[in-house]
Amino acid sequence: VGASTVLVDGRARDTIGIGDRGLAFGDGVFRTIAVRAGRPLNLRWHLRRLASDCAALGLPVPGEALLAGEIAQVAPGDGVVKVILTRGDSTRGYAPVPGAAPTRIVAGFPPVRHEASRARDGVAVRRCSLTLSEQPRLAGVKSLNRLENVLARAEWDDVSIAEGLLGDPRGHVVEGVVSNVFVVKDQRVRTPELTRCGVIGAQRERVRELLGAAGVECSEADIGWDELEAADEVFLTNSLIDAWPVARLGSRTWPVGPVTRRVQAMIAQDDARD
Amino acid sequence: VGASTVLVDGRARDTIGIGDRGLAFGDGVFRTIAVRAGRPLNLRWHLRRLASDCAALGLPVPGEALLAGEIAQVAPGDGVVKVILTRGDSTRGYAPVPGAAPTRIVAGFPPVRHEASRARDGVAVRRCSLTLSEQPRLAGVKSLNRLENVLARAEWDDVSIAEGLLGDPRGHVVEGVVSNVFVVKDQRVRTPELTRCGVIGAQRERVRELLGAAGVECSEADIGWDELEAADEVFLTNSLIDAWPVARLGSRTWPVGPVTRRVQAMIAQDDARD
Repeated sequence: VGASTVLVDGRARDTIGIGDRGLAFGDGVFRTIAVRAGRPLNLRWHLRRLASDCAALGLPVPGEALLAGEIAQVAPGDGVVKVILTRGDSTRGYAPVPGAAPTRIVAGFPPVRHEASRARDGVAVRRCSLTLSEQPRLAGVKSLNRLENVLARAEWDDVSIAEGLLGDPRGHVVEGVVSNVFVVKDQRVRTPELTRCGVIGAQRERVRELLGAAGVECSEADIGWDELEAADEVFLTNSLIDAWPVARLGSRTWPVGPVTRRVQAMIAQDDARD
Repeated sequence: VGASTVLVDGRARDTIGIGDRGLAFGDGVFRTIAVRAGRPLNLRWHLRRLASDCAALGLPVPGEALLAGEIAQVAPGDGVVKVILTRGDSTRGYAPVPGAAPTRIVAGFPPVRHEASRARDGVAVRRCSLTLSEQPRLAGVKSLNRLENVLARAEWDDVSIAEGLLGDPRGHVVEGVVSNVFVVKDQRVRTPELTRCGVIGAQRERVRELLGAAGVECSEADIGWDELEAADEVFLTNSLIDAWPVARLGSRTWPVGPVTRRVQAMIAQDDARD
């Protein structure tokens, strides 16, 4: 898989049993963590979200020191660490076995390189035709059930399109295939409420926190596609891209705005201080 | 995992790489096939549904002779064979890599024993509080995204309850956690239409076919919970249980009815002839 180092339950190994519930049912959660100069970035939010997602599925949460240690062990100088936690073996069917040993996968990968122009000048995005389904029990959770993302990502292969935006059945924009979405209107920042569908990214949570600490209003809300188009600025976040300005959606174009620039600077500052 | 024999891409091996898309995204499909006296039962419908599910996800369909050969190779005298097909390695993120090699897992397991009383006297079922989400693009597909089933199955641990019934957000009954549902009213058989959610089981398709061939009307329809309760008979199907009469749902009880008995006999006959 191109992983430089992989630990499965703490041991150097890059396979799992074919009976693992992560494979059988997608019964698990994951995070993708950027590493710079050997240091995992925004680890506090990754660990918080991991704990929250485990709670949503009733999975045991690994100790933070254990996870941080394993992440440090596999982390390349610069690159990516992926953490996958599953409910372990599936011998008894769908019913979770109380107290069963979960599976913990921590894998280091080389960096994903993006053209610098994406962060500088912004990116072109498209609206996906796939509509996300609504499942409040799984909303926000970065689970291993990601077929909607796979189908949505398969909708285009035009390399000039950097991301696809996904909506819900009620006519709201929810997220990007691999990112969260923020819109800026009259200096106020909003990001879709993810209580019925969507994935809550660690970067989304950090950006909300940093904006709040800076006194910039940032709220969660239902955001219609028309409101997105009417926004002064739109930007995308995830742990590997930081924040990308949206420069184009169909015929609508945006210059890179001041709030987006400020968010990029906040992320860089926080990464340096973290 | 208790598998007697496992083939991964035709080789004796019981692990997959941690980068497989089946684990990363649940990007694959599966079937669970009953084996009796070394013979896989209802293989024709399993292969048809596998082909149909692969088409829904844009996965290549393995040749029927190859699959049948591998199933025969791992099949225990009496037991279960599970087939999992995934989109292979995930190195490039959500975007499927055109022409990439998929992963084919064929695993034999010992039989799952159920008390004979379940088929004879019927089972008690419950209505799950989890509501299925609606995703027409995945409806019917037995994909590896099964977290809703996991959460629903975790709702009860009363061993006297054999199955949980799941509904959609519109107030219809859709399926059981591990089974399809049929209702009989005035000699007419109906089963939920699975175009917005649910999994189309190979046994469901065979039962519809056998009923049709016997001149018994069997249609797909939206079925409300009140219609389920008002039914003369309710039965559940899957490839391992064949057909179980539903004897109780909450305070509603049913005697085992003639259509259910006839369906059980049809399945047994078809298995013998197959």
